[in-house]
Amino acid sequence: MSTFHKLIACVALIFAFAVATAQADEGMWPLYALDNLDFAMLKARGLELGPDQIYNPQDGGISAAVVQVGGGSGSFVSPDGLIVTNHHVAFGAVQNQSSVDRNLLKNGFLAKTMADEIPAVGYNAYVTKSFKDVTSDVRRGVNPGMSDLERYETLEKNKKLIIKKAEKNGDVKCRIAAVFGGKEYYLITMFRIRDIRIVQIPHLSIGEFGGDIDNWMWPRHCGDFSFLRAYVAPDGSSAEFAEENVPYKSDRYPPISSGHLAEGDFAMIIGYPGRTARYRSSFSIDESINHSYPRTIERFGDLIGIMEEISVEDPVAAIKLSGRIKGFNNYLKNSKGMLKGLVKSGLLAKKRAQEQELSNFIVADPALTEKYGTVLAELKANHDEQLKFDEKESVLGGLSMVSRLYSTARGLYKWSIEKTKKDLDREPRYMERNVEDRKRSLERMQLTYVPEAEQRMLEYMTLRALRLPADQRIAGIDKQFYIAAREDTAQAVTNFVMRIIDGTRLDEVKTRLAMFDMSTEELLKTNDPFIKLARDLYDETEELNERSKAASGALAELRPKLVEVYARWRQGNYYPDANGTIRLSYGEVKGYSPADAVSYKYVTTLSGVLEKETGIPPFNSPAKLLEVYRSDDFGNYVDSAIGDVPVDFLTTNDGTGGNSGSPIINGKGELIGLDFDTNWEGVVGDYYFDPVVKRSICVDARYMLFILDKVYGAQNVLDELTIH
Amino acid sequence: MSTFHKLIACVALIFAFAVATAQADEGMWPLYALDNLDFAMLKARGLELGPDQIYNPQDGGISAAVVQVGGGSGSFVSPDGLIVTNHHVAFGAVQNQSSVDRNLLKNGFLAKTMADEIPAVGYNAYVTKSFKDVTSDVRRGVNPGMSDLERYETLEKNKKLIIKKAEKNGDVKCRIAAVFGGKEYYLITMFRIRDIRIVQIPHLSIGEFGGDIDNWMWPRHCGDFSFLRAYVAPDGSSAEFAEENVPYKSDRYPPISSGHLAEGDFAMIIGYPGRTARYRSSFSIDESINHSYPRTIERFGDLIGIMEEISVEDPVAAIKLSGRIKGFNNYLKNSKGMLKGLVKSGLLAKKRAQEQELSNFIVADPALTEKYGTVLAELKANHDEQLKFDEKESVLGGLSMVSRLYSTARGLYKWSIEKTKKDLDREPRYMERNVEDRKRSLERMQLTYVPEAEQRMLEYMTLRALRLPADQRIAGIDKQFYIAAREDTAQAVTNFVMRIIDGTRLDEVKTRLAMFDMSTEELLKTNDPFIKLARDLYDETEELNERSKAASGALAELRPKLVEVYARWRQGNYYPDANGTIRLSYGEVKGYSPADAVSYKYVTTLSGVLEKETGIPPFNSPAKLLEVYRSDDFGNYVDSAIGDVPVDFLTTNDGTGGNSGSPIINGKGELIGLDFDTNWEGVVGDYYFDPVVKRSICVDARYMLFILDKVYGAQNVLDELTIH
Repeated sequence: MSTFHKLIACVALIFAFAVATAQADEGMWPLYALDNLDFAMLKARGLELGPDQIYNPQDGGISAAVVQVGGGSGSFVSPDGLIVTNHHVAFGAVQNQSSVDRNLLKNGFLAKTMADEIPAVGYNAYVTKSFKDVTSDVRRGVNPGMSDLERYETLEKNKKLIIKKAEKNGDVKCRIAAVFGGKEYYLITMFRIRDIRIVQIPHLSIGEFGGDIDNWMWPRHCGDFSFLRAYVAPDGSSAEFAEENVPYKSDRYPPISSGHLAEGDFAMIIGYPGRTARYRSSFSIDESINHSYPRTIERFGDLIGIMEEISVEDPVAAIKLSGRIKGFNNYLKNSKGMLKGLVKSGLLAKKRAQEQELSNFIVADPALTEKYGTVLAELKANHDEQLKFDEKESVLGGLSMVSRLYSTARGLYKWSIEKTKKDLDREPRYMERNVEDRKRSLERMQLTYVPEAEQRMLEYMTLRALRLPADQRIAGIDKQFYIAAREDTAQAVTNFVMRIIDGTRLDEVKTRLAMFDMSTEELLKTNDPFIKLARDLYDETEELNERSKAASGALAELRPKLVEVYARWRQGNYYPDANGTIRLSYGEVKGYSPADAVSYKYVTTLSGVLEKETGIPPFNSPAKLLEVYRSDDFGNYVDSAIGDVPVDFLTTNDGTGGNSGSPIINGKGELIGLDFDTNWEGVVGDYYFDPVVKRSICVDARYMLFILDKVYGAQNVLDELTIH
Repeated sequence: MSTFHKLIACVALIFAFAVATAQADEGMWPLYALDNLDFAMLKARGLELGPDQIYNPQDGGISAAVVQVGGGSGSFVSPDGLIVTNHHVAFGAVQNQSSVDRNLLKNGFLAKTMADEIPAVGYNAYVTKSFKDVTSDVRRGVNPGMSDLERYETLEKNKKLIIKKAEKNGDVKCRIAAVFGGKEYYLITMFRIRDIRIVQIPHLSIGEFGGDIDNWMWPRHCGDFSFLRAYVAPDGSSAEFAEENVPYKSDRYPPISSGHLAEGDFAMIIGYPGRTARYRSSFSIDESINHSYPRTIERFGDLIGIMEEISVEDPVAAIKLSGRIKGFNNYLKNSKGMLKGLVKSGLLAKKRAQEQELSNFIVADPALTEKYGTVLAELKANHDEQLKFDEKESVLGGLSMVSRLYSTARGLYKWSIEKTKKDLDREPRYMERNVEDRKRSLERMQLTYVPEAEQRMLEYMTLRALRLPADQRIAGIDKQFYIAAREDTAQAVTNFVMRIIDGTRLDEVKTRLAMFDMSTEELLKTNDPFIKLARDLYDETEELNERSKAASGALAELRPKLVEVYARWRQGNYYPDANGTIRLSYGEVKGYSPADAVSYKYVTTLSGVLEKETGIPPFNSPAKLLEVYRSDDFGNYVDSAIGDVPVDFLTTNDGTGGNSGSPIINGKGELIGLDFDTNWEGVVGDYYFDPVVKRSICVDARYMLFILDKVYGAQNVLDELTIH
């Protein structure tokens, strides 16, 4: 997961049925529920800390060092707000600061003093301050007579009220996390740090050595780390970037371990995993295998091809598109791994058998039958209903995904409607608390806007819209397109897209910001073709949204029931699916066997980097690293047990997208590395955790120190760390 | 090397400079020189046999069981001429017996009785009867005043005379093998068995499980074995297929080991390796890296693409082309591995450094300088001269390779000229001893002739001819083509090729056989366009042949000198490069590490077959094998140390193309498997033996027994074997 964390943004919200019995090192455990863990067992495996030292509501424990940042995770490693995270988590910030003449992404960056640090534009860091069970508040007013949509809206309104109240102090950002599919709801309060700066990032060819070829794979040889710094106002409050800001005072920061690491050593990950779907129903897995993954694999492959063609021709576009290409590639490879893993694991058949057994269990008991007898059938009906609009929804979503102009127009149009409502009646993304962010993203659109990519990807998605089956047509597209053209040939599509792109002014910042303040009527008066497109697609999009809300409302009732009956059927120590909140997973350093007669060792080495080195991207180490290698200048960074400088290592820890940059902590509470990827054989772990082959891929702390020291001479960063 | 043996036919004769100092398990040792081996060391490693038990001129020793067959190797495994060899060695014979309705290749074959055995058309088996040093006879009359061409012709004439005399007994086939680049010459006398029949061959999806994807790779899961039987006339003399023929009486045949095989166990391979080039000069390696391999990779890739397109459309063509596609794919993948290995090993730089050191050694001694001072410079001049015609030669060779019609016409035309000469003055391939074979191959051309492939591949190569640089034009092609067309467009090329194909009658057996008896004049009178093409290309082809002969004549002098001076420089125990004669290599069962953090075990398992199984070729095991697996019906074939049925294993033995089907023999003289491939990392071993990664891939004898027993119920074959 060189862009592991991007999954959060890319993956459509998976309707996860969130309950699983823990086995082996499975489980991403909420910090408020650490008591469910067997600490005697963990101690026997090497953990020297008790639950309170990991997390407690008073002083936080070591988990207080762990932040959510850039869509991934990170941790403070100094009292002055220094954050270590993955290279690929900082990627977007560095991309935005790069130009053809000053390509920080390619050449790396080191601020020798705090004054040299540069803004990580658009980056925030969040520190979790508290968890609170708000289940009864969220479910207040929900009653059995409600329709699915009414239930959805009641739940949403309650959530908004709770958040509004909790966010009265402007420095915190709150969210309500559904746990066990809505069986419980937790209010998560986070301190939001808005001034993040770039301290150090290695060359792309260290941080992402092996690129998309090695992504999701082991053996790996990435120095996937970077350093950021959190700043706040002089009074300690959250503030946007400003000269007078001061480093955030972080009380908790793990020391860095420079000691030996061996197979079998205890390892703990604390971070912000995004989404898992360990107990999805068979209906949902069927949809993934037979519809969504094959579609994704085809479309993402095509879209990457388009962006790569453009990048070869145009170096400026290449930088602007780099993040998207990276994200798409990451998601494409992930989807391929998922599909392969889903098929290979036979999960669908297993799941069907399990549901059959559960049905038998329910049927055997009249009381259970009365309460849970229709749950599975209702879940199936819910999925079947959704399949009716699946293709249409995927194209409408695809239009927003590929077209910056359309998604902007859609956002502006929707905003012009939402803003006339009371705050609590708006959709969450349009509430006052998010207005500032919406405005900022309108400003920043320019950073990644490439006209040729816009045009060609929009053509691609328009053609897909025109190929939709009769019962899932998008009337708005049909109307606009067939007024302009008679036939849906490629040329007609090109003409159509060029015409609306030529006619729009949404590619200008000024226009976008001006439109932000317009009413719906004023917007329509501009006659901008993308605004018109947004208008023509509005009703259909809203209709699908309503359907989706009703489906969510149904699931909010069905999933908790399913969790309950599963729990009745199979006793066990359950953990909830990942939901973007802070979690702990435990495990150990360990290799694996990916195939008959093949063994993977738990650690890779600097010699392995040189073995892959070709001088051609993505296997082109910086000259300085090659020089260090050739001169045998390894300092104290050689691990005598492997006779080499360690680079990356594997652990059995559970994890998923969003965990990128999470600290890996040993039994003593020292940072031994950063989680940055899942192995190919383990990708399917989002659905099905197989302890035999699921591994987390981590960059070794000693490799970070070695690179800082020998390649960059980053003494200032090293001095700031506490190295054990 | 599922078609490992095909290399002999495909690889243009490598001008090998054949001398290397043995290290580790390097070396393919001639049987007449076993005394050079350290038998005390071999005994310590597990060999229980003495040199005389392996080979002696009187009763042969166990090596007398080893035959050369179908371009590969094999060994007798019963007293009744039963031969075990690779599936891919018998492939061509089975392909010729297959049809769309009766696809023996796909479905496998088992003769339940001798009467059911079917002819392996075109196959011979050769048993080496004796070696004789004939160096002085071959070099008789060679003197320093001769030109290179004169030297070549003197050597050739001497060889012919020696062979003619030696072959007086019609049952033997003789050849003169140059050893150490011509420092020594050996007369090899072989008994030729001409009636070979197919006894058993597994399904393609067992014998070649993994196909071109797994070819040259480890871990491997092929049952790459088959059984043939040798027949002779009732009086024991060599005879073509005839009802009354009787099984050949093989005195020597190794028992089959069904016992445990462990890492570190001693292993010995006896077989017929084709060509190695371990001590090629830097000039020659330069040519390989920068010219011949890149060219081969491009052309073979294109030609395979053409044949595959045709095969998809036409199932009859698919069978007819299968052997060629297989051979081309094999060679293509091999070439890629070679190129990668040559670059990665840095052999060119090493070789240049070595030659510099050798030069320094020579220059330091006036006596050496006088004798060897110009050897390297002359070798370089020889290679430089050859580069001048390299492109032209590759296209002329390519025309013969792709076009059955042209190569036939060229052979007939040349034969009409050669047959007017005295036998000893003819080129070897046109001497009386080979006439019968030539005629037979004219008959058999039909078996693999596919008109569409002929046309499209001929177009491909014609276009290459028209793209040759000005100083390497082929006048005959230019003349014929530009008379027919003004421009060398693809369409003009198609028209040209279609016209000559339409006009020829060489696609009829009758015509070909009739032409075989014609004089040059009569041939030309037929006005056949391919005969005309052969005529128009004749002078240029002959001129290149003459140049090539002169180059060989020069090398016949230079190489022995280089061997001598290398031997003076670096004392050591030398072995000659492989040259198609019977050799022994020793080693042990052993895995390896192909890359940082990756280990390959020495053995694969039946569970590994199932792990790769997809149901889609080339990973589609026959239903019966899947059934056996699912029913856990493994008999005694489970190796308790690995808890599974062993499939393939690795050894450190030296080997190369031609070794396919060679018996792997343990310290007791039992057959433990068959060599069938070299691993990807070891492919470059033809130039450079790296003991760390070079491995031979072998099918385990126990897998052969398991498949025969459980999948085919081949009790008759099992009963004939001696199983220990």
